[in-house]
Amino acid sequence: MTENLKPHYTENVQEHLQQVQHLLAKHALVEAVAHQQEMPRAERHELVDKLLHKRHLAELRNKLGSLHSADIAYILESLPIEQRLLVWDLVKAERDGEILIEVSDAVRESLIATMSSNELRVAAEQLDTDEIADLAPDLPHAVMRDVFQSLSSEEREQLRSAMSYPEDAVGALMDFDMVTIREDVTLEVVSRYLRRFDELPDHTDQLFVVDRDDIYKGVLPLNRLLLNEPEVFVSALMITDTIKLQPDDKADQAAQAFERYDLVSAPVVDEDGKLVGRVTVNTVVDYIRSESENDVLNLAGLREEEDIFASVWKSAQNRWAWLALNLCTAFFASRVIGSFENTIEKYVALATLMPIVAGIAGNSANQTTTIVIRSLALGQITQGNARRLLLKELAIGGFNGLLWGGIAGLFAYFLYHSVALGVVMTGAMLLNLLVGALIGIAIPLVMQKMGRDPAIGSSVMITAITDSGGFFIFLGLATLFLIR
Amino acid sequence: MTENLKPHYTENVQEHLQQVQHLLAKHALVEAVAHQQEMPRAERHELVDKLLHKRHLAELRNKLGSLHSADIAYILESLPIEQRLLVWDLVKAERDGEILIEVSDAVRESLIATMSSNELRVAAEQLDTDEIADLAPDLPHAVMRDVFQSLSSEEREQLRSAMSYPEDAVGALMDFDMVTIREDVTLEVVSRYLRRFDELPDHTDQLFVVDRDDIYKGVLPLNRLLLNEPEVFVSALMITDTIKLQPDDKADQAAQAFERYDLVSAPVVDEDGKLVGRVTVNTVVDYIRSESENDVLNLAGLREEEDIFASVWKSAQNRWAWLALNLCTAFFASRVIGSFENTIEKYVALATLMPIVAGIAGNSANQTTTIVIRSLALGQITQGNARRLLLKELAIGGFNGLLWGGIAGLFAYFLYHSVALGVVMTGAMLLNLLVGALIGIAIPLVMQKMGRDPAIGSSVMITAITDSGGFFIFLGLATLFLIR
Repeated sequence: MTENLKPHYTENVQEHLQQVQHLLAKHALVEAVAHQQEMPRAERHELVDKLLHKRHLAELRNKLGSLHSADIAYILESLPIEQRLLVWDLVKAERDGEILIEVSDAVRESLIATMSSNELRVAAEQLDTDEIADLAPDLPHAVMRDVFQSLSSEEREQLRSAMSYPEDAVGALMDFDMVTIREDVTLEVVSRYLRRFDELPDHTDQLFVVDRDDIYKGVLPLNRLLLNEPEVFVSALMITDTIKLQPDDKADQAAQAFERYDLVSAPVVDEDGKLVGRVTVNTVVDYIRSESENDVLNLAGLREEEDIFASVWKSAQNRWAWLALNLCTAFFASRVIGSFENTIEKYVALATLMPIVAGIAGNSANQTTTIVIRSLALGQITQGNARRLLLKELAIGGFNGLLWGGIAGLFAYFLYHSVALGVVMTGAMLLNLLVGALIGIAIPLVMQKMGRDPAIGSSVMITAITDSGGFFIFLGLATLFLIR
Repeated sequence: MTENLKPHYTENVQEHLQQVQHLLAKHALVEAVAHQQEMPRAERHELVDKLLHKRHLAELRNKLGSLHSADIAYILESLPIEQRLLVWDLVKAERDGEILIEVSDAVRESLIATMSSNELRVAAEQLDTDEIADLAPDLPHAVMRDVFQSLSSEEREQLRSAMSYPEDAVGALMDFDMVTIREDVTLEVVSRYLRRFDELPDHTDQLFVVDRDDIYKGVLPLNRLLLNEPEVFVSALMITDTIKLQPDDKADQAAQAFERYDLVSAPVVDEDGKLVGRVTVNTVVDYIRSESENDVLNLAGLREEEDIFASVWKSAQNRWAWLALNLCTAFFASRVIGSFENTIEKYVALATLMPIVAGIAGNSANQTTTIVIRSLALGQITQGNARRLLLKELAIGGFNGLLWGGIAGLFAYFLYHSVALGVVMTGAMLLNLLVGALIGIAIPLVMQKMGRDPAIGSSVMITAITDSGGFFIFLGLATLFLIR
């Protein structure tokens, strides 16, 4: 089914969206006319409108019927909430499940909120067990209980297993949709066996070889099945020295293996050597994309992906934690400045210059952290080279501190005609950039050691320290050397 | 060959790195001893050392020989420059090409710098034409000329074509490694044809059906080849309604199509309908990863991916443009404050509070921009809903302005016991958050309209405006209402 629904790439998904929006606009127009005429006269008018109205909806339903589920998901994400729900109503019930899997978390919530328990149950029952596991956190308990009861005992086992792994484990990425064969048969037997399928699972680039206890033996790439003579045995062609994922492995590691070795699918094997599932490249692509989006969202302090049509109230909440945290660090920085009020009173120029010291060091420290976080993710930082890296970043910080601090010092000198002020400025920039380099390395390393994701929250802490630290260093030096 | 080199996933790549580092350390030790003993007596000692020394290098060479090219690339990226070049020397020359393709740009530069023209030519000649095109920008002209001359006329055509597309076009992602068949043959003929290959190209999940003029007709998934009887004709099974990429399409769009429709490979067809190449999922994964890394690097103002072992001088340069730009905007903000020196002189509390106004609005505006940039990339922002989005973000800004501005106002009031100061603080926060929401939407939209990537540089501009704007609004309001 999926294959038949692949649209031409050239008439791309934006065009589909525009067509749907066009139909929705027509529908809204008729709706408006109908409502206007409901109160006064002429039932005929009303009838005509109703028909027209129905026609647009029918057209819309047809249009949706011809689209790939992923495209419908895209359209739902791109429509404001009322239109989104109207379109959602027009989608055939038997496609609800696959579309719920495709949409973003925030939009999924908005769709599920309008569905009855029964509709949800029907939708969930259309899905594979690994997909049900993805949907489970958003479903009411009662619905999940019913769905669970409708499954075979093997499927229940799969669902339990898929749900037992944290989101960032290989177990959460795997599916159970794989073709297994024995090693003591010929390719001809394998070919005959395959012909009994109506369709192979998506992303079947290799068959998994297991023994009668489901112990994983190796893989037979379809390539080899096609290129060799029918009478050859599987055992002669299978590859035994392959990548084996374990369900407890970090998803990140699996993604790196897929990237590095250009995999399409990989077996997941438990500690007893039993084949329990497989991971396919499409899941890995989705994982990589969502991880990288999370990185960008985290950098901006957004708790989660935001539905652009969510209510103001909901969106505002998504942004609070970060703003509250930043307000706290800003209050602290403000108190640091406050403790030098006397100095500033005597020398107002300091107030104009202090944001420069804080800002540039913050930028520089965030550059350092970005590089450290990336290298940590790639496992390139070892105990051996951490010290070396620190020295290097301190050298860069010192160099940049002299360079840009020197320029800032000249700026201060030309504005306020004080050599001492210029020197204090340069000295403060230099010191604060060194502080920035130090914490730019230390914070992600310490977070990593504590088992936390260094990409989350590093930048708030760093900016807090370079801000408060910058004010303290600059105003402190000024108090020591400029004020008598 | 690649297949045989896939390592066990469990003894993962970090372990390989550690083993290599261990061997390198042994080698360095022997080297040190050897050098100490060169000056005094006993040639015997020296000989023993030389042998030992050679033994470690031989061990290292063996180790490298057993590793996948991608793993060697990883190890090269994780070693400081001297050790990196030592390992590079030990890699068999016939693997140089594939490893150069795998390493990051920065590391590739460091390796190429040590290679002779002849070595480079040999390395390049091992590669497919699409890979040569990737390497070309880093190769000296003379080398490229030689390589070009060594190619067949068909390959020259491919190389010319691959090099003619910008980096972000589908043409730059495509390869030419595909199996084409005719529609008027049976599956049996296709199977016989395939058996003549030693190996199918990587990621062959479907065969491309063309006519005798290479006009693209459709695809035959290997699935269908396997599941159907040998006497069926290709024309009866091939899928004609597939995604077709064009070489001029944006690579981004192609990546989205791969994600959305879970593709493994897709045909690239020129404007005359001729099949010119294909794109495979591994290239798309690399593209997605490098794009997302670029996004994160850009946010931190790093010009390019950095080799963590590059020299201080080189790394510092990578960070200059951003720091220089930020210094300029900081100077400007400093002058904004400077124009209110009289006000600050009369009321020093303002100096302690002003960074709060600037900072929180900057954070809030960057949250807005992050969401807008993401929605733009997905094509979810249309003329119809841009206004709606603006109103929503203004509402969120206003709401957050009152909330956090109110808290900041109370903070100011309790510290300085002035109701007027508290009100000015709240008012300034509210106004600056509204400014932030406005530019947080406007800047990426305008950049997009100008055909520039809104992810690059938006955040500097936004921070510059919320900083200078915040100081201006806060100090301006204070001058009007607090100073008599």
